[in-house]
Amino acid sequence: MIKARVTVTLKNGVLDPQGKAIEGALGALGFDGVGHVRQGKVFDVELEGADKAKAESELKAMCEKLLANTVIENYNISVD
Amino acid sequence: MIKARVTVTLKNGVLDPQGKAIEGALGALGFDGVGHVRQGKVFDVELEGADKAKAESELKAMCEKLLANTVIENYNISVD
Repeated sequence: MIKARVTVTLKNGVLDPQGKAIEGALGALGFDGVGHVRQGKVFDVELEGADKAKAESELKAMCEKLLANTVIENYNISVD
Repeated sequence: MIKARVTVTLKNGVLDPQGKAIEGALGALGFDGVGHVRQGKVFDVELEGADKAKAESELKAMCEKLLANTVIENYNISVD
């Protein structure tokens, strides 16, 4: 069993209204000195087998097909 | 300027319908051998100043107050 973490974040330059809302909320809660906030997603995926290279290429295909919108999002795969 | 990443994930035992939907979708796309999938959130936060210890304690307060629901979610802070 391989455990992997896929992190999907918005590309630079893509507007992130959710992040902006969090910035505003943090300010309203009294947190000063908060700069930009960007929100992303994380997926913890379990895969059968023990071949890490195969798992990584499979995860890459999953990102391209489902987990990330590669027009506006970057993804990062880390296999434990 | 300090850059930090906050990762918020569901605690063990908390149902994750979004993760289950992704499991199903990956299966439907022909990815075999996919076990559990859990989805979480990631926040990239910029903070003014250079005091990492202060930044970390401030981020902890942000998590407790806004970024995470500590009843059902765990959070992890990593300061660059």
